[in-house]
Amino acid sequence: MKSRLTKILVALLLLTSVAHAADSLPSWNDGAAKKSIVTFVTKVTTAGSPGFVPVPERIATFDNDGTLWCEQPMPVQFYFALDRVKELAPQHPEWKTQEPFASLLKGDLKTALAGGDHALLELVMATHTGMTTVEFEQIVKDWIATAKHPKTGKLYTEMTYQPMLELLAYLRANGFKTFIVSGGGIEFMRPWAEQVYGIPPEQVIGSSAKTKFEMRDGKAVLVRLPELNFNDDKAGKPVGINQHIGRRPLMAFGNSDGDREMLEYTQGGSGARFELLVLHDDAAREYAYGPAKGLPDVKLGAFTQALYDQAQKDGWTVVSMKDDWKRVFAFEK
Amino acid sequence: MKSRLTKILVALLLLTSVAHAADSLPSWNDGAAKKSIVTFVTKVTTAGSPGFVPVPERIATFDNDGTLWCEQPMPVQFYFALDRVKELAPQHPEWKTQEPFASLLKGDLKTALAGGDHALLELVMATHTGMTTVEFEQIVKDWIATAKHPKTGKLYTEMTYQPMLELLAYLRANGFKTFIVSGGGIEFMRPWAEQVYGIPPEQVIGSSAKTKFEMRDGKAVLVRLPELNFNDDKAGKPVGINQHIGRRPLMAFGNSDGDREMLEYTQGGSGARFELLVLHDDAAREYAYGPAKGLPDVKLGAFTQALYDQAQKDGWTVVSMKDDWKRVFAFEK
Repeated sequence: MKSRLTKILVALLLLTSVAHAADSLPSWNDGAAKKSIVTFVTKVTTAGSPGFVPVPERIATFDNDGTLWCEQPMPVQFYFALDRVKELAPQHPEWKTQEPFASLLKGDLKTALAGGDHALLELVMATHTGMTTVEFEQIVKDWIATAKHPKTGKLYTEMTYQPMLELLAYLRANGFKTFIVSGGGIEFMRPWAEQVYGIPPEQVIGSSAKTKFEMRDGKAVLVRLPELNFNDDKAGKPVGINQHIGRRPLMAFGNSDGDREMLEYTQGGSGARFELLVLHDDAAREYAYGPAKGLPDVKLGAFTQALYDQAQKDGWTVVSMKDDWKRVFAFEK
Repeated sequence: MKSRLTKILVALLLLTSVAHAADSLPSWNDGAAKKSIVTFVTKVTTAGSPGFVPVPERIATFDNDGTLWCEQPMPVQFYFALDRVKELAPQHPEWKTQEPFASLLKGDLKTALAGGDHALLELVMATHTGMTTVEFEQIVKDWIATAKHPKTGKLYTEMTYQPMLELLAYLRANGFKTFIVSGGGIEFMRPWAEQVYGIPPEQVIGSSAKTKFEMRDGKAVLVRLPELNFNDDKAGKPVGINQHIGRRPLMAFGNSDGDREMLEYTQGGSGARFELLVLHDDAAREYAYGPAKGLPDVKLGAFTQALYDQAQKDGWTVVSMKDDWKRVFAFEK
């Protein structure tokens, strides 16, 4: 009795969702990109169709920086680290002469980042570790509640792409589980990803520091150690996906060379799969730094010509922000 | 219109679930253990009650060996490794003289395991790595479909505890997300956990080998490397929980010293939390190896006197398999 009633109610719920799916992408122009998404989702969700995929296998993975929110002029987490350096500087007099901190404190980002990945890692470790996971979560929450984008003056959480928010909701309404798979810090994203993207902490995958279990005043805590645990970028993304999800994505979304292996791994699965890259070609509404417009690659978040060529060859959908998106941010108009 | 209909349907669904919750634990005797579970779940799921916990925070973590299925006379994964040694032996003539393989092939488990954790790790690496993740998944699926318990002759998947299967379903019906957090191999459990426990791969946390992304014949694969990636036992369990879930469990279930830190970590969260240990004191229907009955500790899956004392002191629920469970396995009667 209960079982039959439940089944009927679930069926009704699913019908309601599917019926309203077609107009759930209002910020997308009717073009090839939107069509490729809707066509694929319709195929894998149509019961009885040869391409039908059961709900538990409907896994969609999204890069974060440059795919779900703006990563220019620098990734958001870099500004967080920078503000942490300023805040912690009084406790670190040695930073006045020690790179990359000395240059950062002078506002000279170029020199600070000349040290490459090593400098970046040192910066992250010095500003992101040494506290408990609970303390760090609060630090991130406090920062993200007020920190603003240097060009638009909007909160970073408002710098999320409206078409991608609609896409996340559309996929979930069609039985997909949506995951973030980012080179950014897992503990930097989790405190706000649920509210901003509707993605709970257990569906956020990212780079991480090691942690250590300790009893403090009779309470169990995890302390963040200044040591890299996992680098969830490039060939690390499939590794992170397998570690956290244990299934190959059915759909994967990225915007840079750091996402190449995630899309390749998705494509390597059996049956039809879907891969998409967001091309930043809209200098007016956001930034233009994709190769197709002949712009030079930037160090972070590079969409190289080689990636563009691979997308063409492998049939990955490329979204032109300029042509495919009616609006980029919710605050437009 | 859609929104209101959906809300009504969801509300009906929830009511249906809750109404049937009380009799969802038929294999549990009406005693203190069952009562503590139902009381806690009722408290955290009753809207408007001071102890109410929103659905996304209803996280329940379960140890596997000895908590969800039988771990005696040896953990199931050990028998898997043993069968793999026999299968691979023709390709490894050197194993005839090399420990722990030589003793294993002679059927002398005691000598084979005299090497302790190092011998065990060597055994696991030699039998669990070197192939792709997809190949390993198939190897596990093939094995678990036919391998049988040495004493009962039942499939290992039938050696799961009926009361715990009911508990998993009961918690899920009350909005909980159920996770496995095991010292066992994450890739050893995932291929069958969804079918047997209703727990999808992305909710299985365990120990793991490192993997490496590769292109093979133009297809992306992950290759399993003979190197430990993560040991998800003891103080590793809270680390694994934080890494995979990013929230502290509301309820945690274990049976041995390997689960102590998971239960401590759960208890360390804000508000009311629930911790439970399964005590193996039923020699007739399963095995008796808990301390309260004055039995000697076994090396694997030890429930020490110290753990028992801590459970009493901290108010953790201790389940006596003998007294609290009407039946242990579904195949009884």
